[in-house]
Amino acid sequence: MVIHMTADGTAPLRAAVAGASGYAGGELLRLLLQHPRFEVGALTAGGNAGSALGEHQPHLPALAERVLEATTPQVLAGHDVVFLALPHGASAEIAAALPEDVLVVDCGADHRLGDAAAWEEFYGGAHAGSWPYGLPELRRADGSTQREALKGARRIAVPGCYPTAVSLALAPGFTAGLLQGDDVVVVAASGTSGAGKGLKPHLLGAEVMGSMTPYGVGGMHRHTPEIEQNLSAAAGAPVRISFTPTLAPMPRGILATCTAKLAPGADPDSVRAAWVDACAGEPFLHLLPEGRWPSTGAILGSNAVQLQVAVDTRAGRVVVVAAVDNLTKGTAGGAVQSVNIALGLDEGLGLSAAGVAP
Amino acid sequence: MVIHMTADGTAPLRAAVAGASGYAGGELLRLLLQHPRFEVGALTAGGNAGSALGEHQPHLPALAERVLEATTPQVLAGHDVVFLALPHGASAEIAAALPEDVLVVDCGADHRLGDAAAWEEFYGGAHAGSWPYGLPELRRADGSTQREALKGARRIAVPGCYPTAVSLALAPGFTAGLLQGDDVVVVAASGTSGAGKGLKPHLLGAEVMGSMTPYGVGGMHRHTPEIEQNLSAAAGAPVRISFTPTLAPMPRGILATCTAKLAPGADPDSVRAAWVDACAGEPFLHLLPEGRWPSTGAILGSNAVQLQVAVDTRAGRVVVVAAVDNLTKGTAGGAVQSVNIALGLDEGLGLSAAGVAP
Amino acid sequence: MVIHMTADGTAPLRAAVAGASGYAGGELLRLLLQHPRFEVGALTAGGNAGSALGEHQPHLPALAERVLEATTPQVLAGHDVVFLALPHGASAEIAAALPEDVLVVDCGADHRLGDAAAWEEFYGGAHAGSWPYGLPELRRADGSTQREALKGARRIAVPGCYPTAVSLALAPGFTAGLLQGDDVVVVAASGTSGAGKGLKPHLLGAEVMGSMTPYGVGGMHRHTPEIEQNLSAAAGAPVRISFTPTLAPMPRGILATCTAKLAPGADPDSVRAAWVDACAGEPFLHLLPEGRWPSTGAILGSNAVQLQVAVDTRAGRVVVVAAVDNLTKGTAGGAVQSVNIALGLDEGLGLSAAGVAP
Amino acid sequence: MVIHMTADGTAPLRAAVAGASGYAGGELLRLLLQHPRFEVGALTAGGNAGSALGEHQPHLPALAERVLEATTPQVLAGHDVVFLALPHGASAEIAAALPEDVLVVDCGADHRLGDAAAWEEFYGGAHAGSWPYGLPELRRADGSTQREALKGARRIAVPGCYPTAVSLALAPGFTAGLLQGDDVVVVAASGTSGAGKGLKPHLLGAEVMGSMTPYGVGGMHRHTPEIEQNLSAAAGAPVRISFTPTLAPMPRGILATCTAKLAPGADPDSVRAAWVDACAGEPFLHLLPEGRWPSTGAILGSNAVQLQVAVDTRAGRVVVVAAVDNLTKGTAGGAVQSVNIALGLDEGLGLSAAGVAP
Repeated sequence: MVIHMTADGTAPLRAAVAGASGYAGGELLRLLLQHPRFEVGALTAGGNAGSALGEHQPHLPALAERVLEATTPQVLAGHDVVFLALPHGASAEIAAALPEDVLVVDCGADHRLGDAAAWEEFYGGAHAGSWPYGLPELRRADGSTQREALKGARRIAVPGCYPTAVSLALAPGFTAGLLQGDDVVVVAASGTSGAGKGLKPHLLGAEVMGSMTPYGVGGMHRHTPEIEQNLSAAAGAPVRISFTPTLAPMPRGILATCTAKLAPGADPDSVRAAWVDACAGEPFLHLLPEGRWPSTGAILGSNAVQLQVAVDTRAGRVVVVAAVDNLTKGTAGGAVQSVNIALGLDEGLGLSAAGVAP
Repeated sequence: MVIHMTADGTAPLRAAVAGASGYAGGELLRLLLQHPRFEVGALTAGGNAGSALGEHQPHLPALAERVLEATTPQVLAGHDVVFLALPHGASAEIAAALPEDVLVVDCGADHRLGDAAAWEEFYGGAHAGSWPYGLPELRRADGSTQREALKGARRIAVPGCYPTAVSLALAPGFTAGLLQGDDVVVVAASGTSGAGKGLKPHLLGAEVMGSMTPYGVGGMHRHTPEIEQNLSAAAGAPVRISFTPTLAPMPRGILATCTAKLAPGADPDSVRAAWVDACAGEPFLHLLPEGRWPSTGAILGSNAVQLQVAVDTRAGRVVVVAAVDNLTKGTAGGAVQSVNIALGLDEGLGLSAAGVAP
Repeated sequence: MVIHMTADGTAPLRAAVAGASGYAGGELLRLLLQHPRFEVGALTAGGNAGSALGEHQPHLPALAERVLEATTPQVLAGHDVVFLALPHGASAEIAAALPEDVLVVDCGADHRLGDAAAWEEFYGGAHAGSWPYGLPELRRADGSTQREALKGARRIAVPGCYPTAVSLALAPGFTAGLLQGDDVVVVAASGTSGAGKGLKPHLLGAEVMGSMTPYGVGGMHRHTPEIEQNLSAAAGAPVRISFTPTLAPMPRGILATCTAKLAPGADPDSVRAAWVDACAGEPFLHLLPEGRWPSTGAILGSNAVQLQVAVDTRAGRVVVVAAVDNLTKGTAGGAVQSVNIALGLDEGLGLSAAGVAP
Repeated sequence: MVIHMTADGTAPLRAAVAGASGYAGGELLRLLLQHPRFEVGALTAGGNAGSALGEHQPHLPALAERVLEATTPQVLAGHDVVFLALPHGASAEIAAALPEDVLVVDCGADHRLGDAAAWEEFYGGAHAGSWPYGLPELRRADGSTQREALKGARRIAVPGCYPTAVSLALAPGFTAGLLQGDDVVVVAASGTSGAGKGLKPHLLGAEVMGSMTPYGVGGMHRHTPEIEQNLSAAAGAPVRISFTPTLAPMPRGILATCTAKLAPGADPDSVRAAWVDACAGEPFLHLLPEGRWPSTGAILGSNAVQLQVAVDTRAGRVVVVAAVDNLTKGTAGGAVQSVNIALGLDEGLGLSAAGVAP
């Protein structure tokens, strides 16, 4: 029997990744490989089961010869942490079959929404219930952060990539009472990895390069109720958004342009102070100096969120722009950060705030 | 003396282009070369005067050996049409020195705004006055279109690229009384040719590729008052917008996501009918079938505007998305279209509604 | 009965396009729409038959509502010209069913190779025989060009995109006796539209953007014998090449870097003179001034070939670089050019040498 | 006085970076931040001295507020390691002013070439002499690797990015005697960060995106003698190359397609065996399984080299393709790897073989 030890002499934690041949799975593995406390255990897939990981994730030479197994509770058993990067609707059954003391991390949508009606409206089918929500920096109206809810958790729902960007962008203004919740407008651009690895004509490189196009227009995108859930918690009152996602000619990254009407009495100074306050002490939230603007290029592969806020006094609106990497902070990095908190490790272990730029 | 004749035996019109080494100048020349009635006359530049056009516009072999001259009224004299693709503030003096019966087309901002106070706020310096505005499809509250104002014109102010996209996107709703004018929010993504050919670090390819970033946030972009001018004319009442432009990793194209609150009584059917009506008979406005969305890739190099409209009943907003090529319909194509109207030619002469895709 | 007339009063030529939902088909239609003598007739497809063209070619609004028919001889009958943009192996049977006086243009590979053994080695299956080869500028050792062979032709084999670029790049040196034919090395980069519209994981935008990768390495690419056929005809002796294609992160364009050893006695002056001579009078071949280099961006959507040649005296090699648009000059533009010649029209009708840049 | 300690209790090594606002400098800092033994000391620049690093390297939040100092020996004194990422010709004087026991790492070209005549031919000016060459994996004809020459070194010349890719691609064949050295042909594509951050029109995003273009054609690129130096050392005899670099529309990455004629007696089995042998035990050299090909996307931000080799028996050539990240393994990663060896640390410390993909 082989006993693995990490650099500091502690036994490693074993992590399984279900859905290891997809984009979220690949990013989880990239982060786990550089995490000092984790050892990569079982890797599973659906249709790709039986093939080598190297065929699907050529950027991970350390795991190239690992063979993908079928996604079953038996294969996933015996790990300290199980990451589920599965299509929506596939997590609940698997999770139910895993012991309660195993940390199960759902990167899909199944356990994000607390409101069963919203689930049914936007996703359809039965609501699986909600798990502790993996967005540590999110503050509620009472001043607490989501971080507390994650300590010791054994089930974590990883937020969607757009909700990560938009919620962290706007929550500071809602908790500070500076924004009105009835007319929030968000337009966000995402790299095409956000659409997954499924084979669809509009995702072909020749279609995507040099082109931008919207999708899910008219409030139909499934991340809409999740964003509203988060911002409503921050505001302590219902928030309603108009959300339009667009597909941008880049592999990764989200640039979210978020605007809300100023509450009476709010002024540029109080606005800036609220965001300064929200980012203070947060290892991954970076409010840029005035005059500089977030760019997705600067946070490629990083767990950082770049933020900037401006007040448009003519229009009576606050404009907040956030840049995140949809696969890192928006999915796998947020997952690892939440796992670190749940397990009592240093929150930033295995994660970097530096982007791979240019 | 050489007499040039076009295919149908008429004498060609001679066109001069000032600013021929820039992006707008290059696109004007590309279109003039394929226009059956024009012959390319003098080409002028600022710092590039004295060099061959081929050094700056390698895509135009027919003109590669033409030498750029200095931009002076003397060089520009003796043409039927003079296109000015100059930095803001440089057009008024040149234009004043050209005869009144020469058709002068200003691709810069100098003559777009009717409101001197708005000019001074956003551009600074003295207001040069306004010229007939080169956006033929723009309808006013009284049902007339801008097309009429261009017939016989000898001075034309070509719209900015963002105002072209946003105004044509939203005007139909305002003329039909379906939109509220007090809280319009627009977020638009532009290809980097929109930022011109000036050498700035953030425009380097390595910075731009794979990255999106906003600029001019907080209502500061100079196209803001021009959009408001157009939409106010359409509404017959003041319209106020929150406008955020972003730079996207593509050479050309604008995707404008435009939202406004529904006026009381407006419903999805009346909304769609208004846009159907506005596009009927317009050779370059294409309202897509329901379920399809504009993409900038589909209108590359074309004078077309792709439009789609959706109603978000939860948020109480209309979302209109427009795709235009910032250099074609957004600048040079719009200029040629307006010139065709001014000179009594077929409006679409030398222009194509087909994009170069994929 | 509707009689269509073109601008000059002649009856239009009716063209059918088989394979109209693919990339080659789309480019053919874009060019036919701007051709003064053609009218677009039947449009056919395989699996996409029954759907509207607008679903597949959103850049062609003039044809958006046309419904794709099944590809059968009956549907294709009754046209003056039939363009076949079909998978390899599908053309011969269709062509055999069309009358001999109909001009049939095969954009696939079936009729390009004269050597049945080479066909069987690289493509497999029975050799369909060869048709007049649609590369008008290609010169043979005897000084004749392929242009002559196309006059009056009623069957045309359109060259492959790589063979177009490489053959036009190197043929001038072979006809002039300046190059050795035993050790030609070519490395070419292609935009991803060259790989077609088939759904394959490595063609997804997220995989392609920011990444270059080779394929068909080791002399296995099917265009290899076609290039050798062309260069051997130019040399009047067998030419053997090492050819490596690569996939580049761009939608269109081929940049072919072609090197061959200098023949004894060849010097830089004689080399340049040979290419100057080969390009003289050719409307679509542009030898750039010394010091400037071809770029695919400069010939986007154009039928032009940009060429430059250099002598590496240290290595004893000539290096010729060619840029073509794989869909225009490399497929559909070359097809239209050849059709113009076959029908006795002006060779450049409906084609442009100007690129859509930047 | 502050004593810094690393995780394992040892005192950190202090590193200075000269040229910290450029692309190589930024990548050095990214890697140093994740290196467990280094602490970032002085950061210097030329024209950017006096400004904050965050203005130039927005992807490095940990150092955003650091102010750039002028590049002088005084500022660089007092560090354990000094990285020079300076324009060619600027390193020698600085290095001479630093103590001999300080490890000085030159990322520029000044100390790469052993042959003064080659220096003068390709760079001009006086030859600064050569330093131990920082390409640990490079084997010589006698079977030794460059790794040995780096142990204990206090001056290191970091290889150029193209020489890194090409030398590691072809050296295995030369050391094994399987390749002829008289007719090597290399065509390589580089991301545009390889051209640096200087403001040049052809590097603007709008020019670069969607376009490929060659440069330094005809054996003129300065990396040519460096590649020949390396391959000649591997072969134990002079090697002569024809090298053509091209600029590809991506921020980072080099894809080098390298071909050489097979030596008599070489066959596909012996060829594969030579590359298998050369990669065995090398932590950053990855020979892919047969049938898979390197892609630059797979090694983004990684220190890995992806390799594949094929034999073209028709052409009598070996084709080797290598993918490296020009800024990581091609510059900053190679520098850190060499520093680790020089200082007796684990060779891979602070480096990753995993790429950031997709």
